[in-house]
Amino acid sequence: MTEPLTVACVGAGYFSRFHYDAWARIAGARPVASVDRDIARARATGLAAYGDLDAMLAELRPDIIDIITPPVTHLGYIRKALATGPRAVICQKPFCRNLEEAREAARLAEAAGIPLIVHENFRFQPWYRAIRAEIEAGAIGEVLQLTFRLRPGDGQGPDAYLDRQPYFRQMPRFLVHETAVHWIDTFRYLMGPPEAVFADLRKMNPVIAGEDAGYILFRYPGGRRAMFDGNRLLDHAADNTRCTMGEALAEGNGGTMELRGDGSVHLRAFGAL
Amino acid sequence: MTEPLTVACVGAGYFSRFHYDAWARIAGARPVASVDRDIARARATGLAAYGDLDAMLAELRPDIIDIITPPVTHLGYIRKALATGPRAVICQKPFCRNLEEAREAARLAEAAGIPLIVHENFRFQPWYRAIRAEIEAGAIGEVLQLTFRLRPGDGQGPDAYLDRQPYFRQMPRFLVHETAVHWIDTFRYLMGPPEAVFADLRKMNPVIAGEDAGYILFRYPGGRRAMFDGNRLLDHAADNTRCTMGEALAEGNGGTMELRGDGSVHLRAFGAL
Repeated sequence: MTEPLTVACVGAGYFSRFHYDAWARIAGARPVASVDRDIARARATGLAAYGDLDAMLAELRPDIIDIITPPVTHLGYIRKALATGPRAVICQKPFCRNLEEAREAARLAEAAGIPLIVHENFRFQPWYRAIRAEIEAGAIGEVLQLTFRLRPGDGQGPDAYLDRQPYFRQMPRFLVHETAVHWIDTFRYLMGPPEAVFADLRKMNPVIAGEDAGYILFRYPGGRRAMFDGNRLLDHAADNTRCTMGEALAEGNGGTMELRGDGSVHLRAFGAL
Repeated sequence: MTEPLTVACVGAGYFSRFHYDAWARIAGARPVASVDRDIARARATGLAAYGDLDAMLAELRPDIIDIITPPVTHLGYIRKALATGPRAVICQKPFCRNLEEAREAARLAEAAGIPLIVHENFRFQPWYRAIRAEIEAGAIGEVLQLTFRLRPGDGQGPDAYLDRQPYFRQMPRFLVHETAVHWIDTFRYLMGPPEAVFADLRKMNPVIAGEDAGYILFRYPGGRRAMFDGNRLLDHAADNTRCTMGEALAEGNGGTMELRGDGSVHLRAFGAL
């Protein structure tokens, strides 16, 4: 019987709870440590707690290092993690602060021969799995357009994002770097790699630092297009506007599929009501 | 009692039926003539029929000349009509073939002191009147985005537009010049004059000459935007896809209004389902 792979998580902030919970449910993995500058937060995970990454790496040499910290730390932590020769390094999105850092991280991983995986979850959401399965089954014919309207409705006024992630207000680049990356990846999952991109970004809420609304248009071969239309001040019809965070429409020459705010996907054949 | 104004219509083709019908129902107007190169079509209107514009103008000197012909004829007909000193000249959209012709037509009318009116009907459709009335009443707060998805579904394959206007297939500029002009005007009606425009046009149906799909993004002061997303191959949910020709969404910081394919307008308050 194979030993489970040991996993150390770096970061114990807001979003890390989903990582710790998931690792605990994976049979082939054994969570062994949590690292956080705030040692109390690391201890709260119930794992061996470290306030220092170097100490943990030297002591435990985990098989997998899962980096769940802000982008400013990523390249440095990736470098340290790779140096200990693990089986894999996983890094939360947004991956790095800029393209140069991202290229350097990829170069280091390739040189070491170690998989470096960017953590991205949206393409695994059940509605996008359902949409892709229907597309592959030919349910809507050739896909001509894909649209996503981001409408979480959580960004109006001085209390924007307060109940979850108030640090969003200080991010100098917000809409794309923090949020739209999810759909950039999801669009790749559903449409393949784009051949050109246009973006029109703007700041609607004057109290925040970055942009919170914008259109991003992706061009694909054969005249196909995908449009990300984001506006964090506006909402959509849903009991929980955080469930899908908006509404999607996949349109083919044989029909359309609509993702609604409750996560349901509705298929309409061409010419049907 | 004032005498009704005499009206002569130039053109008796496909769309002119709506003009003749409307003029007959206006109490202050008296249709007196129809001009068409095909004299049989002019006669079919039941009015005095002319095969030649010059002859009609010289003989009748109508108060109003209503030009219902293709754009290639517009500047020449406007020039002839203005020269007879009418009370007004009306010209169907698309107004002219290019900006230079349009400026020349406007210059001629201004020099003559005669109103030159471009015939545009969409902003008068009841759903756009309802949307504007709700916006003015503050029903959705400050309007941040306006979207129209043109989805008439009449443009697939070699039979595109066949049942109504097959000449669409030969138009070198189709989506904007023939069709989207309706929403460019409607957007002006609902949002005011834009300060910048971006367009991404493409041809999806290989058998036609012009472009039949595209995005047009209009920028307004204060970060407000309007998006025209047109695709003549795709359809929308409606008994009659020619009724609204697509679906609109007006979004404000206090709520949204949705125009559906049956012409109904649905208001949703911010935070409501």
